[in-house]
Amino acid sequence: MLVVQKYGGTSVETPEKILSVAEKVSRVYDSGNQIAVIVSAMGGTTNYLINLLHKVNPNPNPREYDMMVSTGEQISTALLASAMSKMGKRAVSLTGFQAGIDTDSNHVRAKLKRVYQGKMLSLLEEGKIPIIAGFQGVSPSGDITTLGRGGSDTTAVAVAYALDADVCEIYTDVDGVYAADPRYVENPKHIEKISYDEMIEMAAHGAKVLHLRAVELARRYHVPLIVRHAHIDGRETRIEEVEKMEEPLVRALTVDEGIVKVVLESVLDKPGIAANIFKKLADKQIPLDMIVQSMHKNGRNDVAFAIAKDDLQDTLNAMEEIKDEVQAEAVHYDDTIAKVSIVGVNILGSSEIIYSMFSVIASEGVNIDMISSSNSRVSCIISKSKIKEVANALSEKFELRDFR
Amino acid sequence: MLVVQKYGGTSVETPEKILSVAEKVSRVYDSGNQIAVIVSAMGGTTNYLINLLHKVNPNPNPREYDMMVSTGEQISTALLASAMSKMGKRAVSLTGFQAGIDTDSNHVRAKLKRVYQGKMLSLLEEGKIPIIAGFQGVSPSGDITTLGRGGSDTTAVAVAYALDADVCEIYTDVDGVYAADPRYVENPKHIEKISYDEMIEMAAHGAKVLHLRAVELARRYHVPLIVRHAHIDGRETRIEEVEKMEEPLVRALTVDEGIVKVVLESVLDKPGIAANIFKKLADKQIPLDMIVQSMHKNGRNDVAFAIAKDDLQDTLNAMEEIKDEVQAEAVHYDDTIAKVSIVGVNILGSSEIIYSMFSVIASEGVNIDMISSSNSRVSCIISKSKIKEVANALSEKFELRDFR
Repeated sequence: MLVVQKYGGTSVETPEKILSVAEKVSRVYDSGNQIAVIVSAMGGTTNYLINLLHKVNPNPNPREYDMMVSTGEQISTALLASAMSKMGKRAVSLTGFQAGIDTDSNHVRAKLKRVYQGKMLSLLEEGKIPIIAGFQGVSPSGDITTLGRGGSDTTAVAVAYALDADVCEIYTDVDGVYAADPRYVENPKHIEKISYDEMIEMAAHGAKVLHLRAVELARRYHVPLIVRHAHIDGRETRIEEVEKMEEPLVRALTVDEGIVKVVLESVLDKPGIAANIFKKLADKQIPLDMIVQSMHKNGRNDVAFAIAKDDLQDTLNAMEEIKDEVQAEAVHYDDTIAKVSIVGVNILGSSEIIYSMFSVIASEGVNIDMISSSNSRVSCIISKSKIKEVANALSEKFELRDFR
Repeated sequence: MLVVQKYGGTSVETPEKILSVAEKVSRVYDSGNQIAVIVSAMGGTTNYLINLLHKVNPNPNPREYDMMVSTGEQISTALLASAMSKMGKRAVSLTGFQAGIDTDSNHVRAKLKRVYQGKMLSLLEEGKIPIIAGFQGVSPSGDITTLGRGGSDTTAVAVAYALDADVCEIYTDVDGVYAADPRYVENPKHIEKISYDEMIEMAAHGAKVLHLRAVELARRYHVPLIVRHAHIDGRETRIEEVEKMEEPLVRALTVDEGIVKVVLESVLDKPGIAANIFKKLADKQIPLDMIVQSMHKNGRNDVAFAIAKDDLQDTLNAMEEIKDEVQAEAVHYDDTIAKVSIVGVNILGSSEIIYSMFSVIASEGVNIDMISSSNSRVSCIISKSKIKEVANALSEKFELRDFR
């Protein structure tokens, strides 16, 4: 079997943990498999590097930012390869560039263009273990790029696809995907198997275990994913194509507190006004989460939308630029909100499920501020202060808790 | 003018010092010069990385060692380039690989094979400032290599040669080269100008300010060197071709405490025996400092030689291997010795100078253990306990102290 494994920052944050990872990799190799490993920077290293950089320049050039932070993964590869060689294994560390990971030129948030299999395959054929720096690649001009948040997961999936691996195993600090986040819901059910579509909805709406881009890439190229705990053997979650569609069923619940609502008050109610506002956001590559346009009197509307907290300053700047054009009376934002979502195949087709969701939230005495949905997900924005009560009540209703 | 500057680890060890270096570079640029900068790792970083590596493997693979420690210089380049851009300068960091610094495949102590000027020249022509990682390069197989001790100085000289720079300025934590090391001799004279040959002898026999390889490379390619303090403006030392030979004159004194004497006792006195011993050392690439073969009775000799402390273990291993073949009775070593050298052009031709040296040492009541010499240098090995007295007495005799 050809196995690709990825170890996150918390899994390699000390020399002891790196040695334990090396043992894990050795066992897979000794069982007669070929194996390639993707590593993140040691936990804490990336933040250390960014802080150091900000001390010389609070607004560093993106190219230099990438040059700086990419050293974190390079260090991890050298450490893991050295730990492997202590165990008598021939491991070879590779930077993104050396591994053949080509990206576009968008520093800090580069997109993968191609992963060349040549170098990695020839190492595998020599019986060696390639240890590849996650999160990084090289641009057409030969500059070091980084892939942005979740980059190492994305590297792992892309490498698994390029090598035509049998499986891509993501090792992290939890033993798989849960039906709800234990920070909000007591004793959530462990999920053994989940479809790409459901996992994508979960990742897009608050679940942290896997990054959205990585799951989307895995779905596109049919790369089977397994999530496991890096240092505790036990349960796992498999993410793969689900063959036959089942009855609508709520599989999981996610909470996202990383969002802000932005409101343009008393915007002129004319065709194209809302479009102008959202085009402005699109131009600045700010992804919109939800939109609500509430009818007002005197031919004016309030336009409200939710965005990621990280995009707040850029969004407010954009709204200031367009405020006069759309004749908004004011722009303000609300960061006391949170989003709760239920995820499952075909759930939007089940009015019973949607009715249940709304009535559980109402029975907690909580107002729904905005609603959005896809085929596999319904999300409600509510007050952050009530998020735990609502998440637990919904988990009980949809049997997402494990009472064994 | 095209200027190459190199900043050592102590010159860039804090964000504040990096900003101060950036100002210095900016001033040179603003005066209408082209400038390329070579940087070392921030002081302390390399040791930190090596310690971390040793925690997972006390005997790391040399390739992985290079992968690990080369991140130190990469970080410095990103920081300095970011500090430059804060000052409105367009600076571009380059790893050894990106800069086009090709080496052989001897990891940890790679030798430069070629420096390609293309990338650096095109940046300079665009009005940009290349910031190049010192100490590192890339092997023919695309692996990251490091150049060993003094590597960043060597990178600087090689880049200056490749770019046909007008000058190579080495910035460090002293304001130039002194006639003696102030740790041993009070108030030594500052040297304004010195020949490559003299500087090579000084570097080879204890002076730390410039690395031997760098000076040898500068001499071979006629690269004019200037040594200055990175953060205090003032004096400097120029190292360049001396046109006309002057009268023999002692220019400088060096002390080297980093040596050990190894003795093979009662070796069989047959032709070729000594040669066998020294071939063994050459095979292991252990440079010999001095050799003494003292006549003994019964057709047996003691063979003694001095080596660098760092090579002691390798040397003892080599001597154990050859001990029986040469019928040595015992192998032991003495690390209570030190070497004091006087340096100057043609001094070996002056019996007066050599006589003065020996008589000064004798008048201090100190025995000379071994002697070695070149055209520009005479070295004596004496007891380490007397090294300061001897160094000061010689400095006074040869007027190497500054009494202003």
